[in-house]
This record gives sequence, C-alpha cells and structure tokens, in this order.
Amino acid sequence: MSLVIVGTVAFDKIETPFGKTDKILGGAATYIGIASSYFTDQVKVVSIIGEDFPEEYTKIITDHKMDIEGIHQVNGGKTFFWEGKYHTDMNSRDTLATELNVLADFDPVVPESYKDCEFLMLGNLDPTVQRKVLTQLKNRPKLVVLDTMNFWMDIALGSLLETISMVDVLTINDEEARQLSGEYSLVKAARKILTMGPKYLIIKKGEHGALLFDQKENCFFAPALPLEEVFDPTGAGDTFAGGFIGYLAKTKDLSFDNMKRAIIYGSALASLTVEKFGTDKIAYLSEEAINTRIENFKSLVEVDIQLIE
Amino acid sequence: MSLVIVGTVAFDKIETPFGKTDKILGGAATYIGIASSYFTDQVKVVSIIGEDFPEEYTKIITDHKMDIEGIHQVNGGKTFFWEGKYHTDMNSRDTLATELNVLADFDPVVPESYKDCEFLMLGNLDPTVQRKVLTQLKNRPKLVVLDTMNFWMDIALGSLLETISMVDVLTINDEEARQLSGEYSLVKAARKILTMGPKYLIIKKGEHGALLFDQKENCFFAPALPLEEVFDPTGAGDTFAGGFIGYLAKTKDLSFDNMKRAIIYGSALASLTVEKFGTDKIAYLSEEAINTRIENFKSLVEVDIQLIE
Repeated sequence: MSLVIVGTVAFDKIETPFGKTDKILGGAATYIGIASSYFTDQVKVVSIIGEDFPEEYTKIITDHKMDIEGIHQVNGGKTFFWEGKYHTDMNSRDTLATELNVLADFDPVVPESYKDCEFLMLGNLDPTVQRKVLTQLKNRPKLVVLDTMNFWMDIALGSLLETISMVDVLTINDEEARQLSGEYSLVKAARKILTMGPKYLIIKKGEHGALLFDQKENCFFAPALPLEEVFDPTGAGDTFAGGFIGYLAKTKDLSFDNMKRAIIYGSALASLTVEKFGTDKIAYLSEEAINTRIENFKSLVEVDIQLIE
Repeated sequence: MSLVIVGTVAFDKIETPFGKTDKILGGAATYIGIASSYFTDQVKVVSIIGEDFPEEYTKIITDHKMDIEGIHQVNGGKTFFWEGKYHTDMNSRDTLATELNVLADFDPVVPESYKDCEFLMLGNLDPTVQRKVLTQLKNRPKLVVLDTMNFWMDIALGSLLETISMVDVLTINDEEARQLSGEYSLVKAARKILTMGPKYLIIKKGEHGALLFDQKENCFFAPALPLEEVFDPTGAGDTFAGGFIGYLAKTKDLSFDNMKRAIIYGSALASLTVEKFGTDKIAYLSEEAINTRIENFKSLVEVDIQLIE
C-alpha cells in the first residue's frame, strides 16, 4: 500500500496582518506529504527542486519518512518560488511574485518503486503534468484525488477537463466549483461536476468548512473550527487534501461514511496549519494534538435532537 | 407560558434573480411569529400597522393563533414598506425604498395580558423601542432574545449597547459581530460581546450556517443546508430567530445543549423560508415538512469518528 503525491516543493515568502517571513519551505506536495504522513509511512513524492533547496528543508520532508526518490533536483536550477500577501480577511491575497524556475520544465518521471501505488494525490499543477504521472503508473490506483484551481480553468480548461475525467475525487473551492459548472448553487454545481468523471466532489469553503458530494445525492458538511486567530492560511487546502487521502490510505475504506471521517481529519489538520507560518505548526505534531483537534470538531457539531410532535 | 414578540409587520416588495413580487406580507415580527407558532400557540405580537393592512394578511397571522391585541392599527396610517433587490449571490442586496410610515411614531404599548410573558423576542427595531417593550413587563422574562443589525450600530450605538446589556441572547451576523466588537476573529468577537451583557451570542452566517457561543467558551456550529436554489432570502434571519425562541418556549429548557437543538430548528425553518418568496413557503408548513428538514440537518453533519492510534 503506498500513496504517491505529485505537486510542488517550493519556497514561499508570506506576509499576513500578523507578520512576514523570509523564504520558507512551502509547496503543495510538502503540505500534502506532511499531513498524510501522520496516517501512513508509505508516502512517495514526485516533484522537482533546484540546487538551492537546503538540507534542512529536505530533512523536514525525510523526517516524515517520505520517499524522495521521485523528487528531482536540478543541478544549477532554482526552486519554484511564490510570494504573497494576505488581506485582513485572510480569504483574499495578492501574489507579489511567482518564479517558476525549475517548475517551468517539470516533466515528471515516476520511479519504478512508485508505479504500483494504490493511492494517488494529484496536487495543484498543470493538468497535463498531473496526467503524465497518472499514465506512468502500472495499474490504475484504487483512488485518485485531484486538486486544482481557477488558474487552470482560465488557461487550460480542455486539458483540465481531461484530467478531471480520469479521477475519483476532485477538490476545489466554492468559487471554482461555480466557475467550472456555470452554476451558482453549489448543489447544482456539484451535480454537474459529478457528470464530468469524478465520483466524489469536495468543495472547500475555507473558514466556512467543506462539503462532500457523491453521485447518489449524498451530501456531508464539515465545519471549519472557529479559531482565535488564522495566522497564515498558506497550505491549508493542501494540508486538508493530505489529511483526507492519508486517512483513506490508512483505513483502506472508500465508503462515503469513511470519506466523511477523512474530511474531518483533513479539516482538523488544516485548522492546525493555519495557526503558524508555513509548516511551523504542522511539521511536528503529536498524535495527541491531532486527536484533541478531532474531539473539538466532534463537539462543535454534536447535537442530540428529537423531532417535534 | 407565553412568548411576546416585538417587531415590524410590513409590506415587502422583492426582486431576486428569479423574479419579483408586488407588495407582499413581510416584517420581522411576521416571520418570527409564524416560525415560533409551530412550537407554541402562546405567541403574542407587539407591532404597528396602517389602515391599508389587508384582512388576508391579518388572516395569515391569526391562522397561526397569534394574539394580535398588541398590533396597533393606525387609522389613516400606512404600513411600513420596504423594497429591495438581491444580487446573484443572494448575500448582498440593494434597498430601493424604505417608507417608515406608521413605524416612524411607533411607541409600543404592551397589553396587560402580555405582561407576564416568560419569553421575549425583540425583533430588529430601534433599540429604544425594543427597550420600551422590555421595561413595560411585570417581571423579567426567563429569556430575552435580541435581534439587531449594523444600521443601529451606525446611528444609535449607545442606545443599542444599553439594550444589549439587558438581554440573554443576542443574534447578529458575522459582519455585525466584527463591527460591534472591533475584532476580526469571530472567536475573539464573541468573547468581547459576551462581556456586554448577553449570556449567549448567536452569529448568523447566512448560507454558511450559524455559531452559538456562551460565556464558558462553549461553541456550537449549525450548518446551513445546501439548497438547490435560494429563491428569496428575505425573512431568513427572522425565521431562524422565531424557530429558535419558539423551540425554547416549547421545551422550557435553557441549557446550552437545548439551545443547540433550538438553533437546528431555527436553521431548518429558515432553510424552508428561502425556498419561496416572502412567507409563501413558511406560512403553512406540515409537521412532517419540518421534521424531514430536521432529519436532513442531522444527516448533513453526522459522522462516527474514531481517534487515530
């Protein structure tokens, strides 16, 4: 049983109302990998980095027992870099700089030892690159989860739709679900998107929680935990996805009921990520910290209700 | 055991992306009264209407067994009128007309038979008027719930704070909670507002659900039901408040656990209100329709989760 993750391993420079960072460890595969590593030690990463990627960041990744054979380091290359500034509401941000660097020519080569994976997480990337990973595998994994964003809907919709048609679970945010479907109602949007290939759709609503839909009109809602302070939202969506697929990889149960649990685990981990800059909070979590957060989520919505007579 | 409601009984003219209405029955007390009447037949209304208020609308109110002795009809007067247009997202709207009419001189007189009420719902109104109702009662009710809005924070903050200091439960939306507290984080906003008098705070987030806080740092979240279509949001917040206090008046249990149930009932009724224009959907509901909606809410968040080992 292994979980292959493809996505960026990157440098982020972040400014929020609470402070700013220098170049720190970031990237979709980083957050997904760290989050999923709390559930399985069979995480294998496909990514690309430059020669400037420091040992100390590699150590954070390998400390989580991730297999990094699939992380290609380009001699003389520079690591993908993103710089952004969040507004007070933390729901919107300005991108101040995007330097693709080695990511511009990322042509993923999946190591032989990865090719029999049972779980595949396609982190946000060019949908053509995502497909290249999927098509290099020996067998179709038991579960393929795709994360993407509006950027690819704007510039590569055809390719994105092809990738979407090949996966089991799609995760996007509410605005993206509306854009992809042309429907304002999320219920209608979900119904339409679930005709495009995926059997499950997760709509992420940030501080407003997440919705899970299947093709049988089942719907599950997981709240976001009301937090004292959202310190840095970077990586929350990726952490969510990592917790989600990591929990499924651990439990090997792909029922709707188990996906509900996986979403709570993803939400719990994401709620931790945003409490510090970058990976500072999520990198070295205790089992107790995770379980306490799960208990918080349970009690947040727990209600014993009788019908009226 | 009776429940006194003060608020507007009004005419609304509404335009949404789905259509428009003529002048129809509206007003905070109307929605609160109808919603609460599904739980108790001891609803008594304090309000003001003009001579133009038609028999057929009075009938809708009395069909719900509400006591209308406290609804003062002004000879020659015109009923309060609001006209608005909702945008596509249904979260924002433009007010096209507000004619206060008889509401401009509303000086509520609470009938003797109302003065021993155990539950009091102060619907959105000038906070001075709200206070006038509270101070006319013989005894302090067991529970006083206050609904208000940013308008009163802008033009009558001192008076509003005085009213807020006298109630048990305050219901406002997320932006209003931020405005009132000066805190962006809703957790911090709640903590601050709960030092202003109320023992409980309900933060309404529209399509994103509602949060209940108490002074002991307990927090409960009730989702909004994802709907095919939000047809007309008018009255959703008032319906929510009416379901909430109606359920509490019926069950007479003011524990945090029971308030959680009351919030689910309020949310369920509000989710029905928005499916048709005005009071069309909520006015004549079957017990079965309400209970089915409650079941929908239960299954939306129900998850059986184990902690990781």
